Amino acid sequence: MKKNQYVVIGLGRFGASISKELIKLGYEVLGIDKDEEVVDELSSVLTHTVVADATDEEVLKSLGVRNFDCAVVAIGDDIQSSILAAIVLKDLGIKKVVAKALSELHGKVLNKLGVDRVIYPERDMGIRVAHQLVSPNLLDYIEISKEYTIVELSVPKNLCGFALRELDPRAKYGCSIVAINKQNGIIIAPTAGDVVNENDVMVIIGTNNQIDKFESEVIG
Amino acid sequence: MKKNQYVVIGLGRFGASISKELIKLGYEVLGIDKDEEVVDELSSVLTHTVVADATDEEVLKSLGVRNFDCAVVAIGDDIQSSILAAIVLKDLGIKKVVAKALSELHGKVLNKLGVDRVIYPERDMGIRVAHQLVSPNLLDYIEISKEYTIVELSVPKNLCGFALRELDPRAKYGCSIVAINKQNGIIIAPTAGDVVNENDVMVIIGTNNQIDKFESEVIG
Amino acid sequence: MKKNQYVVIGLGRFGASISKELIKLGYEVLGIDKDEEVVDELSSVLTHTVVADATDEEVLKSLGVRNFDCAVVAIGDDIQSSILAAIVLKDLGIKKVVAKALSELHGKVLNKLGVDRVIYPERDMGIRVAHQLVSPNLLDYIEISKEYTIVELSVPKNLCGFALRELDPRAKYGCSIVAINKQNGIIIAPTAGDVVNENDVMVIIGTNNQIDKFESEVIG
Amino acid sequence: MKKNQYVVIGLGRFGASISKELIKLGYEVLGIDKDEEVVDELSSVLTHTVVADATDEEVLKSLGVRNFDCAVVAIGDDIQSSILAAIVLKDLGIKKVVAKALSELHGKVLNKLGVDRVIYPERDMGIRVAHQLVSPNLLDYIEISKEYTIVELSVPKNLCGFALRELDPRAKYGCSIVAINKQNGIIIAPTAGDVVNENDVMVIIGTNNQIDKFESEVIG
Amino acid sequence: MKKNQYVVIGLGRFGASISKELIKLGYEVLGIDKDEEVVDELSSVLTHTVVADATDEEVLKSLGVRNFDCAVVAIGDDIQSSILAAIVLKDLGIKKVVAKALSELHGKVLNKLGVDRVIYPERDMGIRVAHQLVSPNLLDYIEISKEYTIVELSVPKNLCGFALRELDPRAKYGCSIVAINKQNGIIIAPTAGDVVNENDVMVIIGTNNQIDKFESEVIG
Amino acid sequence: MKKNQYVVIGLGRFGASISKELIKLGYEVLGIDKDEEVVDELSSVLTHTVVADATDEEVLKSLGVRNFDCAVVAIGDDIQSSILAAIVLKDLGIKKVVAKALSELHGKVLNKLGVDRVIYPERDMGIRVAHQLVSPNLLDYIEISKEYTIVELSVPKNLCGFALRELDPRAKYGCSIVAINKQNGIIIAPTAGDVVNENDVMVIIGTNNQIDKFESEVIG
Amino acid sequence: MKKNQYVVIGLGRFGASISKELIKLGYEVLGIDKDEEVVDELSSVLTHTVVADATDEEVLKSLGVRNFDCAVVAIGDDIQSSILAAIVLKDLGIKKVVAKALSELHGKVLNKLGVDRVIYPERDMGIRVAHQLVSPNLLDYIEISKEYTIVELSVPKNLCGFALRELDPRAKYGCSIVAINKQNGIIIAPTAGDVVNENDVMVIIGTNNQIDKFESEVIG
Amino acid sequence: MKKNQYVVIGLGRFGASISKELIKLGYEVLGIDKDEEVVDELSSVLTHTVVADATDEEVLKSLGVRNFDCAVVAIGDDIQSSILAAIVLKDLGIKKVVAKALSELHGKVLNKLGVDRVIYPERDMGIRVAHQLVSPNLLDYIEISKEYTIVELSVPKNLCGFALRELDPRAKYGCSIVAINKQNGIIIAPTAGDVVNENDVMVIIGTNNQIDKFESEVIG
Repeated sequence: MKKNQYVVIGLGRFGASISKELIKLGYEVLGIDKDEEVVDELSSVLTHTVVADATDEEVLKSLGVRNFDCAVVAIGDDIQSSILAAIVLKDLGIKKVVAKALSELHGKVLNKLGVDRVIYPERDMGIRVAHQLVSPNLLDYIEISKEYTIVELSVPKNLCGFALRELDPRAKYGCSIVAINKQNGIIIAPTAGDVVNENDVMVIIGTNNQIDKFESEVIG
Repeated sequence: MKKNQYVVIGLGRFGASISKELIKLGYEVLGIDKDEEVVDELSSVLTHTVVADATDEEVLKSLGVRNFDCAVVAIGDDIQSSILAAIVLKDLGIKKVVAKALSELHGKVLNKLGVDRVIYPERDMGIRVAHQLVSPNLLDYIEISKEYTIVELSVPKNLCGFALRELDPRAKYGCSIVAINKQNGIIIAPTAGDVVNENDVMVIIGTNNQIDKFESEVIG
Repeated sequence: MKKNQYVVIGLGRFGASISKELIKLGYEVLGIDKDEEVVDELSSVLTHTVVADATDEEVLKSLGVRNFDCAVVAIGDDIQSSILAAIVLKDLGIKKVVAKALSELHGKVLNKLGVDRVIYPERDMGIRVAHQLVSPNLLDYIEISKEYTIVELSVPKNLCGFALRELDPRAKYGCSIVAINKQNGIIIAPTAGDVVNENDVMVIIGTNNQIDKFESEVIG
Repeated sequence: MKKNQYVVIGLGRFGASISKELIKLGYEVLGIDKDEEVVDELSSVLTHTVVADATDEEVLKSLGVRNFDCAVVAIGDDIQSSILAAIVLKDLGIKKVVAKALSELHGKVLNKLGVDRVIYPERDMGIRVAHQLVSPNLLDYIEISKEYTIVELSVPKNLCGFALRELDPRAKYGCSIVAINKQNGIIIAPTAGDVVNENDVMVIIGTNNQIDKFESEVIG
Repeated sequence: MKKNQYVVIGLGRFGASISKELIKLGYEVLGIDKDEEVVDELSSVLTHTVVADATDEEVLKSLGVRNFDCAVVAIGDDIQSSILAAIVLKDLGIKKVVAKALSELHGKVLNKLGVDRVIYPERDMGIRVAHQLVSPNLLDYIEISKEYTIVELSVPKNLCGFALRELDPRAKYGCSIVAINKQNGIIIAPTAGDVVNENDVMVIIGTNNQIDKFESEVIG
Repeated sequence: MKKNQYVVIGLGRFGASISKELIKLGYEVLGIDKDEEVVDELSSVLTHTVVADATDEEVLKSLGVRNFDCAVVAIGDDIQSSILAAIVLKDLGIKKVVAKALSELHGKVLNKLGVDRVIYPERDMGIRVAHQLVSPNLLDYIEISKEYTIVELSVPKNLCGFALRELDPRAKYGCSIVAINKQNGIIIAPTAGDVVNENDVMVIIGTNNQIDKFESEVIG
Repeated sequence: MKKNQYVVIGLGRFGASISKELIKLGYEVLGIDKDEEVVDELSSVLTHTVVADATDEEVLKSLGVRNFDCAVVAIGDDIQSSILAAIVLKDLGIKKVVAKALSELHGKVLNKLGVDRVIYPERDMGIRVAHQLVSPNLLDYIEISKEYTIVELSVPKNLCGFALRELDPRAKYGCSIVAINKQNGIIIAPTAGDVVNENDVMVIIGTNNQIDKFESEVIG
Repeated sequence: MKKNQYVVIGLGRFGASISKELIKLGYEVLGIDKDEEVVDELSSVLTHTVVADATDEEVLKSLGVRNFDCAVVAIGDDIQSSILAAIVLKDLGIKKVVAKALSELHGKVLNKLGVDRVIYPERDMGIRVAHQLVSPNLLDYIEISKEYTIVELSVPKNLCGFALRELDPRAKYGCSIVAINKQNGIIIAPTAGDVVNENDVMVIIGTNNQIDKFESEVIG
């Protein structure tokens, strides 16, 4: 199966990060930006890079952009260019167009123009950072539903040496420990006899309330 | 126990998002920005807002910033102000200072100045978006270790009606299904007889290779 | 029957002209512009004028814009503001939104956003002026179809004193004289005996070829 | 007979539209603009294009502008350049100089300098749009005199299937139907038995009052 | 007899100098400039001063400018404002409008608009200075015709003590000494016995050739 | 005798006018300006032209400026450059440095630096124009002393046909007619029988009071 | 005896430092700057502070500047203002005017205008820093003449515990130790038995060669 | 022993002065600045000069900066560049990094980043100038400790011809004369019979109080 090819428009911090990760994941990436300096910096990293105005349909056509599987509009701070690039890309018939929005209104316009996914990186990252700020042991989390979350918590000093049966989160709080990541390897579906130490990381699933309670009473 | 109080410096898209989420999580937030317009927009949302230059120690002192538990330097695009605000905040003795970096070099300076945590929101969000782009059914994920990941995958049409014993990821790929989120409720630690349908979401834990193989052969 | 009320956003030359003509035609007009000076100049002419940013939904709501029958987005040279104002107006539920486009691409975006009519004033006026340049006696015209046009021609010196039967455009060229506007009144459906003089204006209907031929052979 | 040659100064939206329409009508056009990008875009469309400052008499002389039959000053927003270009063109002895005015005062200056025709595109287009806004079925119109107008009206749903004798505009309102443009061809000077359908277009001549009344009572 | 009243538009170095000299000569002057600072500086010197835009007819009307006898447009470097102010002043019916031109083309436009006198101060002053540079003893001069000039020459050291009969310019060079300005008074139509000294100034009339010869052979 | 050579620094309107007049008078001129466009325009008129920064001593040395007889600093609006150029020129040992001042203070600095003559063109021209404005028949004048002036007056209609004996300015007003410039030649020291006509120009010498009285009573 | 009063014009880093040191030394200082923010910051430190343009003689007069004993022109980066302020201050008759120069040429102008002392802080400080860079133990120095210098050297580790007779700089190198500053007090004119320790500072007088040799052979 | 090599970043007035003095002292200097003009001016003076951005680690590496013994960050007015350059230089492992600070806060950041010496040239020079202003005979001074100072004083007229025994500073004021610099040579450790003359310079050591008293009573 042929691997997907990506075109990333706008190579600022966000676009550059997407582009480089896609390359790392083994995909081909064409990077486009109006700013020559920005393009130069990535020219040895990405598959192809072009200095071009992505709001000019003729330019994108001549670059063969219509043959790409997916386009990412990661334009930094210029709402107008983002909107015009998005409509040009949709008009070229690209199957999947993903675009970064700078505001709710901008996102609404992108949706109306048929953009397949609108991303709010600063907003989403802000939310994620806020959660980590208020739970200092929270490393990462996935909201599975409005009610249920999986959290990755670092084991604090005071729990060091405890066996899971002593913590017993299922019985006491209703949440279950999915895995423990220890220095010397991961334990998936750990049993009551497994012991946690400092620097271990627990992955726990449960409702928000269960986890909050477990965190505040056990993790502290 | 008294709840932590946060001061957020820089109320652009990232700082505004952190501030609003902290408020939503029930904490007090003092928001500071040099731009009056930006401050006005958040004045009815945050606990306190001030138009001020956060690189002026006297100003921060007079605002009582030293009594806050945690400060977030979320200044948009001005490396100099970010650095000066960070050192002023550390000098004021705030326990925890978190700051957004615009580049590796900027991050390195912040670390040297004693900032407790340096965040690269665009870089991190770019990585996350890249992963979702290449796995269209990937909703979210946590990297537990270099090897192990938990992924949240939407169930594609073609798996509709299958029982887990038919997919049997543990036997065939080595990864385990931690939970299935169904319309009518979540099933934690599902059993072989549980059936998946379109719109269900599976939470799976395994090594990156196991999950990649499962994804490409089963999820497709 | 209550008369329609209009809101005109952008009071540059084009927006000002629409607004003033609507007032002259007896309608109520609310004029909005970001530029105080521009608003001041029209404040005594329009029903209401406001200095405001029309891309801010809250502002437009507080002005009661949703109760207007028709909105005209006549923003001068700022594509972004034009697009954002258009989506805000559609979101407010205004029945008819008309917007000026600065380019084909801009027009395409406006159409996608549900704008009811997109106007290209400079392009359309340019076409009209080009026609008048090449036919110096052409005062105005309506293109009824691709083939048929009604033209308003001033009578040149050399036709002075001729009766219509001498010109006989119907027989010779296939086009008919619909009316003659003379100093002392208009003659609708003139007859063969009617005489034209300098400064008279003939209104003629026919195919483009018929009129071209009549013009070049008779009007000269 | 040799066809007229046109020089168009200023290739913004208005000047570009005039130039392209003149080309379409079969005339030669020399396009001049100070902005290289703007000139490049039209270089394959117009007969000749030059990047030049049209306020410099020597430049215009060297381009042989004095041999052109007609010059159009379509300079966008720079009153000074428009005035200086106009006087240079008149001094070069060009027979017909047409210029776009940005304000009444600008137009007055152009007239004093001997410009043969002063155009106010935004003002005129604004008036035309205003008329169409208040009469939604009005497609186009010619003001023959202060009193008489020819209008082109689309036939609304509710008139569908009516014979002209039923509408009888001449008897009831005093205005006459000059032509009906139907899907399958135009009927000039239609008779009482002709029937109108949706999507037909009627061309009507009459006084403003007659037409207003006909529109509001019949077209609705 | 009522003394003339002057309005001076543009209070830069040139306009300020005219205004102050007119005041010194005993006339009333209304000074107008867009720049508040410039106006403030002259407010205690001129009869009236106003901060206003002189291209706005309404403003000039409300200032009663139409009742002034003479208007001077001394606007510094803004050709457009100069032109628009000139036409507004002529339209207001002011008897005499004098305007400073920045270039030949600018001057040509001003003339076409009916400006009564166009002045080129830098050009004229440059010419005057050039003449003084090449004749170091030349203090001032009037060109009476293409051929004849009156010059004011300072008497150089080497002529000190000479009687006019020794210089005898009429006989030797054809030019006549009109007057000698001496420390203790002027001698009009001096006679052959009058003696010149250093610091005396001679006023001489003659053809350019006569004076040149006299200057280079006698004055040195 | 070798003719003087001039270097003119600053080729704006004033500097350009001096340079061109010096060339017309037969002298060699080196023109220097920082602005390439300005230099280009004069490159075919002046003996030499250079684009250079005249505040850089090395540059002026390498241009051989020290060998020139006279330097004119005619820099437009940049007081700093004017001052620095002046001191560099004096340091180079140029015999005569003349400089334009923009204000009294600027002039004072130039004097202190040893500039040989400071010129205030706008101020002086303003004074001259003011005098001409208040005496409409005054063509030009020389102030010989505080008391005495020579004026050049055009003969108004009402004096047409008068013999000098009828006007008799010497007897009635104390001033004398030095010359009359007539269509067909000049009359120097005219006699009582000479008759003046419209378009003749009289050159008159006298005290300011005498001339004022003559002007207001006779010339009107 | 009345203490001198100082006026400091320009309150940037250099001017602020002078002003504050003068205050510390017990003198009265009037600080003047055009920038309100800069003035505000020093308003509680200096005797008087004023926001004013120091190139305006009237302003300085009204501030009574002529009664000050000494004026310092410490204007940052604006050569023109520095020059104009200097001449105004000299004209006001201030006995001593000291000014900072930004370049040799600037300094030359200031000297010509009669400024009593011209300072080049960056140049002088650069020289001082260069000397300290090449002699790491050099703390400070005074150049008494071209040949003789007094240096202040920190005692390096390797000399710890040595008596002066062991070092004997007078005999070996020709330079003499003027003083030793020790933790517990200074020894002026130390004798052969005095011992130096780490952190002691020696003050030595000698020729440059003597000191260089002593430094490189003894201090290392 | 190999001599140290220096790299100076920022070649403004301060950096240029350091660089030139280091060259004069016989060291090799690589000068780096972003501004081509500034670099050009020093290219013939310094060992090497480069136009480069010193905040780019790759650039500095490729210039071999890590092999230099000492780096001076003399960047003029850009705090951000100064900070980033400093951290890059420390990261490259340069033994000694000296940097100019524009404010206390800037200096604090530089210290935290490990800069070996932070210099405040304007502040230090300001202090030095202030001391010289208040003691007109003070030529230079070294503060040995908080209490003791060495001063270099010019001998005023009124002391001319006095022998040291008459002044006797040691007995009367407690301070000692270290040296007298006379026209014909320096006297180190002068004796009671040595006589001072105008233009001699005395070097004196003592406490601040002793010297102040000596200055005010003897030097006056």
